[in-house]
Amino acid sequence: MNQALKYNIYQQHCPARLFFEKIADKWVLLIINVLARETQHFNLLKKSIQGISPKVLSQKLKMLERDGFIERQVQNTSPIRVDYSLTSLGLEVAKMAYQLKDWAETNIEQVITAQQRFDATQTEESK
Amino acid sequence: MNQALKYNIYQQHCPARLFFEKIADKWVLLIINVLARETQHFNLLKKSIQGISPKVLSQKLKMLERDGFIERQVQNTSPIRVDYSLTSLGLEVAKMAYQLKDWAETNIEQVITAQQRFDATQTEESK
Repeated sequence: MNQALKYNIYQQHCPARLFFEKIADKWVLLIINVLARETQHFNLLKKSIQGISPKVLSQKLKMLERDGFIERQVQNTSPIRVDYSLTSLGLEVAKMAYQLKDWAETNIEQVITAQQRFDATQTEESK
Repeated sequence: MNQALKYNIYQQHCPARLFFEKIADKWVLLIINVLARETQHFNLLKKSIQGISPKVLSQKLKMLERDGFIERQVQNTSPIRVDYSLTSLGLEVAKMAYQLKDWAETNIEQVITAQQRFDATQTEESK
């Protein structure tokens, strides 16, 4: 049976919905985008993603590891360094995360134009 | 200049980042997925997306309209009905939203397996 027919993200308690909610998340998609470029350790990741708190980064990394998207490699250095990289499953999500990133960066001006047009209409209406 | 080079989602206050944060959102992606199938009015949308509250649906629809992703069409019925449909910009996001949906529904079992493997390791470690 086609798995895509068995699960349905519109159903609130479907496992696919819970999973969809986890990946449809700004921090998760930003982390995956950074790791798609290269393996990174915690501090570098934190530096790459402006605005993420250490607590949130930690939680998301743990979740991504548990879900099978990233792997931790403990480096035998002093102090010990833990590197994070994408698994093959993570690399598949990375393709979609990159498309969203690229689309956002490419189309933001169209969105700003739409917002200005909308706001002008609202002002007209409130006169 | 290539727009994708001008904007950077890793920078916290970049307009592209703010925009990325808005579309990398479970409700937004679910709404866009539903509207990609067909034009819908508010109550049908609410019924299609189990678990969304009227307040959140309302806020997201307003935001999506302002950003230029959806259009409202007021139908001259009694009572008046407002239909929502995707614009051409919205249809572009819909392609990515569909990929994420399809991927989540197709790969959820791989994720569940990964979670079970991870949890088993944690139990081993805590013995």
